[in-house]
Amino acid sequence: MRPSGRKLDQMRDVSVEVGFTKHAEGSALIKMGDTHVLCTATIEPRVPSFIKGSGLGWVTAEYGMLPRATNTRMRREAASGKQGGRTVEIQRLIGRALRAGVDRVALGERQITIDCDVLQADGGTRCASITGGWIALRLAVNKLMKAGDVISDPMLDPVAAVSCGIYAGQPLLDLDYPEDSEAGVDGNFIMTESGQMIETQMSAEGSTYSRAQMNELLDLAEKGIAELTAVQRAACA
Amino acid sequence: MRPSGRKLDQMRDVSVEVGFTKHAEGSALIKMGDTHVLCTATIEPRVPSFIKGSGLGWVTAEYGMLPRATNTRMRREAASGKQGGRTVEIQRLIGRALRAGVDRVALGERQITIDCDVLQADGGTRCASITGGWIALRLAVNKLMKAGDVISDPMLDPVAAVSCGIYAGQPLLDLDYPEDSEAGVDGNFIMTESGQMIETQMSAEGSTYSRAQMNELLDLAEKGIAELTAVQRAACA
Amino acid sequence: MRPSGRKLDQMRDVSVEVGFTKHAEGSALIKMGDTHVLCTATIEPRVPSFIKGSGLGWVTAEYGMLPRATNTRMRREAASGKQGGRTVEIQRLIGRALRAGVDRVALGERQITIDCDVLQADGGTRCASITGGWIALRLAVNKLMKAGDVISDPMLDPVAAVSCGIYAGQPLLDLDYPEDSEAGVDGNFIMTESGQMIETQMSAEGSTYSRAQMNELLDLAEKGIAELTAVQRAACA
Amino acid sequence: MRPSGRKLDQMRDVSVEVGFTKHAEGSALIKMGDTHVLCTATIEPRVPSFIKGSGLGWVTAEYGMLPRATNTRMRREAASGKQGGRTVEIQRLIGRALRAGVDRVALGERQITIDCDVLQADGGTRCASITGGWIALRLAVNKLMKAGDVISDPMLDPVAAVSCGIYAGQPLLDLDYPEDSEAGVDGNFIMTESGQMIETQMSAEGSTYSRAQMNELLDLAEKGIAELTAVQRAACA
Amino acid sequence: MRPSGRKLDQMRDVSVEVGFTKHAEGSALIKMGDTHVLCTATIEPRVPSFIKGSGLGWVTAEYGMLPRATNTRMRREAASGKQGGRTVEIQRLIGRALRAGVDRVALGERQITIDCDVLQADGGTRCASITGGWIALRLAVNKLMKAGDVISDPMLDPVAAVSCGIYAGQPLLDLDYPEDSEAGVDGNFIMTESGQMIETQMSAEGSTYSRAQMNELLDLAEKGIAELTAVQRAACA
Amino acid sequence: MRPSGRKLDQMRDVSVEVGFTKHAEGSALIKMGDTHVLCTATIEPRVPSFIKGSGLGWVTAEYGMLPRATNTRMRREAASGKQGGRTVEIQRLIGRALRAGVDRVALGERQITIDCDVLQADGGTRCASITGGWIALRLAVNKLMKAGDVISDPMLDPVAAVSCGIYAGQPLLDLDYPEDSEAGVDGNFIMTESGQMIETQMSAEGSTYSRAQMNELLDLAEKGIAELTAVQRAACA
Repeated sequence: MRPSGRKLDQMRDVSVEVGFTKHAEGSALIKMGDTHVLCTATIEPRVPSFIKGSGLGWVTAEYGMLPRATNTRMRREAASGKQGGRTVEIQRLIGRALRAGVDRVALGERQITIDCDVLQADGGTRCASITGGWIALRLAVNKLMKAGDVISDPMLDPVAAVSCGIYAGQPLLDLDYPEDSEAGVDGNFIMTESGQMIETQMSAEGSTYSRAQMNELLDLAEKGIAELTAVQRAACA
Repeated sequence: MRPSGRKLDQMRDVSVEVGFTKHAEGSALIKMGDTHVLCTATIEPRVPSFIKGSGLGWVTAEYGMLPRATNTRMRREAASGKQGGRTVEIQRLIGRALRAGVDRVALGERQITIDCDVLQADGGTRCASITGGWIALRLAVNKLMKAGDVISDPMLDPVAAVSCGIYAGQPLLDLDYPEDSEAGVDGNFIMTESGQMIETQMSAEGSTYSRAQMNELLDLAEKGIAELTAVQRAACA
Repeated sequence: MRPSGRKLDQMRDVSVEVGFTKHAEGSALIKMGDTHVLCTATIEPRVPSFIKGSGLGWVTAEYGMLPRATNTRMRREAASGKQGGRTVEIQRLIGRALRAGVDRVALGERQITIDCDVLQADGGTRCASITGGWIALRLAVNKLMKAGDVISDPMLDPVAAVSCGIYAGQPLLDLDYPEDSEAGVDGNFIMTESGQMIETQMSAEGSTYSRAQMNELLDLAEKGIAELTAVQRAACA
Repeated sequence: MRPSGRKLDQMRDVSVEVGFTKHAEGSALIKMGDTHVLCTATIEPRVPSFIKGSGLGWVTAEYGMLPRATNTRMRREAASGKQGGRTVEIQRLIGRALRAGVDRVALGERQITIDCDVLQADGGTRCASITGGWIALRLAVNKLMKAGDVISDPMLDPVAAVSCGIYAGQPLLDLDYPEDSEAGVDGNFIMTESGQMIETQMSAEGSTYSRAQMNELLDLAEKGIAELTAVQRAACA
Repeated sequence: MRPSGRKLDQMRDVSVEVGFTKHAEGSALIKMGDTHVLCTATIEPRVPSFIKGSGLGWVTAEYGMLPRATNTRMRREAASGKQGGRTVEIQRLIGRALRAGVDRVALGERQITIDCDVLQADGGTRCASITGGWIALRLAVNKLMKAGDVISDPMLDPVAAVSCGIYAGQPLLDLDYPEDSEAGVDGNFIMTESGQMIETQMSAEGSTYSRAQMNELLDLAEKGIAELTAVQRAACA
Repeated sequence: MRPSGRKLDQMRDVSVEVGFTKHAEGSALIKMGDTHVLCTATIEPRVPSFIKGSGLGWVTAEYGMLPRATNTRMRREAASGKQGGRTVEIQRLIGRALRAGVDRVALGERQITIDCDVLQADGGTRCASITGGWIALRLAVNKLMKAGDVISDPMLDPVAAVSCGIYAGQPLLDLDYPEDSEAGVDGNFIMTESGQMIETQMSAEGSTYSRAQMNELLDLAEKGIAELTAVQRAACA
């Protein structure tokens, strides 16, 4: 049924290569099928001015796509002089999601920046960024703990994200680009390992949806998140 | 319980003044309590290049806040040289929501731009913008139909939006600013008059949420949307 | 004779609604005919760096137009990434004019920013901004004096502004947009209640003018300023 | 009395070197005392879109200052990423002034751009730009007429500009920088050779002014303009 | 002697992975030691306006660094709103170098854009970009020839680049970052397989250099280029 | 043979007018034939943050062209909102070159900014900027030494720059614009009076070059540099 030949509730193959780059405090190349995102974590001893002196830490994210990560070349954002609306929306989402998975008191007054750069895109780049970004964050925090800079582990439950959508009337898990571009309803679900929700975003794209349909997608998402958090645990072990 | 003294499922007073400005093809000043948004609709005989020649119409939106709409003055975005991430996120949301309520074939190859400018802010400005923006859009389409430029009504069911959140452990309908800034979970729900969903956005702000809590907020949202679409019908009558 | 049907020396109806928005230290919606400008005053405890430590206060202004304040929609300046030349020129004029009406020693080392946002335009928006901006400024200073933060009243004589022009060979007071766009000579006159001048700007638009014509316009302007300062006094009473 | 030692109604020495650069259709280096401005005229066979097809010509101007034209180095506008408010205000003024001295029907559908670049500044740069810019414009039009591209001379009366101000209670003609920075009232007067007025700008800087004072400055300005238009005639002879 | 332990004339290990990303018409990940650059080639059927209609093709390049490619995180250029001077300089160099290796008549009126994105940096990123960029270009042209869109091979001799420098008084081949940051003279040499020169850039960094020293570096460069063009040939075979 | 009628190894006439503007600590108008560049030096008591507290001085440069310095008018960079790639490349080169001619310890912790503004262009503007910029720098340092602010002369050997190229197969010294635009190989050579090299840049423009050809151009450059440093000595005497 699916263009990809996958079953309705079947994820793409997921793989993670930790330590893909050597300079960052944490780094991971996550591949969800043909979507490949390089995630790095940078620790800095300063926080944004609005929490200076509060004792709280901060986690933020930036997102980018290489110009030819996609099927036709996109203009380089550095050349066009600003980040587009889609980029801004996505990086704010990644930052919020990862921040929700951290005890900011335990982290202490330092900032961790997660850079998510899409080397190749085939749908679901924001979800891959969150899932891979959590791994880079975990690795960087491990380094802080090993060095004794942080005593109590600030990382709460693993946080992962997956997209679901309604395609040709059917609920699908983990849409790739051909599926995503034809889906009538499109959702991104960010959850913890234990199934608690952090962010839910569902959009009608050409048709509305009912609460029953929303629940079907949530069921799929829970299945996907369980598989992704297992991958996260394995990659950081 | 609520800082506002309202009941958990009680909306703020809503009022609409149509025709607030005279040049626009449709205009409405919507007041949801102390949140006041001026919405105008502009019809133009051109569409974005990616749908040129398709016969389809387009609806888009722009959002802004006057510098002193808020308690402390914010820097004017025109002076700082770009629209901030929050602005971009909101105006993309308004555009998607209103587009979902229009039959773009019936609209024909023309663009309607909804400008939503917040004159005074007290929480829920994006929801007020969508609810008021729909009214401006409806009025502009009425003008097109009266002039015979559009024959079959392109407006589908009324579209409205409301925020709900979990505050001190309680689900609340229609958060004002003091409630919103303390809420642990915050959601924006965009629905049609008949209760079909167009966009759902829920975010944990400091605590995660369960599916049971999500359902409580959806119940509240359905109640709020019913009241708002009644106001919309009355304003356009 | 006039497109508006007014007499040569007749102003448009002027009305002022003080306290139009609740957050600002002073606010007024001024209507000069169909030109409607929302003026707000913001007090901040800092001054620009070039007068830091001087003991002097500062008054500055920013000006904006909502995109559909005019007959055809203008591009939003925040979206185009900069304030246009006309905007910059106008807000510098408003700032200079209002600064000239203040004893900066008595004000003390604080800044008051006047935001003038045009909700609907029909000619004379810069003059309405100055006249309405003075009211917002007066109200904000009243608040400072009531709180005992300022002892001696820093507000000098009321400052108002009016446009005059030569239209079809006739000198006219207070041009609306149809008159302004056809005028051969166009002037903006900023004066105090007692008739002292603060700024004079006259431009030939297609024809030059003599000193005799300039004097005719100055006579009209004095009449208009007297009416406007009376409105200002009444609004602040 | 004057810091410069000049009499109240005495201009600085004025000199003009035409043809200072070789590529432009017209060029002049004008020196008003220590204020040196290089003015060039560029003819292009296109007009702004808002008059395309009207048969009318257009004259516009751009203004700049070399970073070290002034006593302390100013940041280069190209490096800071935008033209400041003062620059925008001045170049719009120069454009309006020179446009008023041209019969745009006779000029025909072409644009002449006057670039005024201040090599050294000592007060009065906008007036020097207008006076020198007129010369560059005249020379460029001469070239068009010689080539037979324009038949009837589109240049009306010569247009020049001079500043006057009230310094230590005294009306002064042609202020240099030390005088300008201390003047309580400051005016720029743009007139034709025959004494007709094109633009009048007077500003109170710390004190207001009366109509009597305004008239004293106008008398001085008429004297200065007569001297400047004589220099213009001589330079273009 | 060298921090890296290499011999004076010893290159770092070079490896190339062609087809690293799937969408581009040509792609290669080149690794020169710890410097890793992803190069992609994009073919488009349009050329810059200044050669439109000439029948000539165009090759251009863009360069970027991921924020954490380096030891400390650099600000993302898309976020800071412009490409820095170093970026602009480098991408112009890459474009010129690759253009010099192409017969633009044989290429025909189409543009090939080479994107060089540094995933990890350890000195010599511009040289790696040119060497790897040539491979991506070669692969894209192969595709054009296979499709019959280009008949006669437009690729001239292979083009590669290598850096040399004087470190502690010794001439070194292929500097890594620790060597580069301490070198007194630094050069980049772009040559063809046959040893003809395309671009030579040598800079004194703290000490000047003689023609004799320049010749020593040129000798080293010729050795390095021979090795690199062999790698290029092998990668494209 | 040369379009200019000069001999292959003949420089254009060079002249220098020191003190061309009065405010700068050093200024010179250098004319290399029809290329005229105004160079000014500004001394400031601060250094860039990356060397603060090091005791070292800094020399930097900015470069600009007046819009009509060239045969057709170029867009003003201040108006287009950024410095183009060519401008950035050139001003970085000028800064590096002049910095190499200064003992930064002897200069002490202060910055000298060299502004090079092209009033008229006919090829070789970057070389003229370096040669003239050195003169402005020398004059500014003289002022520091006279005032006793600097004791030991920080100026090393004079630094000058000249372009050479291969035109119609012949090596030429000091290319003017018509020669430069047709040259197949183009080089800029920055050297000290004693013939030591500071920067070498050679580019193939349509044909490659051999080491033998490179040496011919270096021979020409040495001749030109000797003539230019003699002019520099004379101008500063």
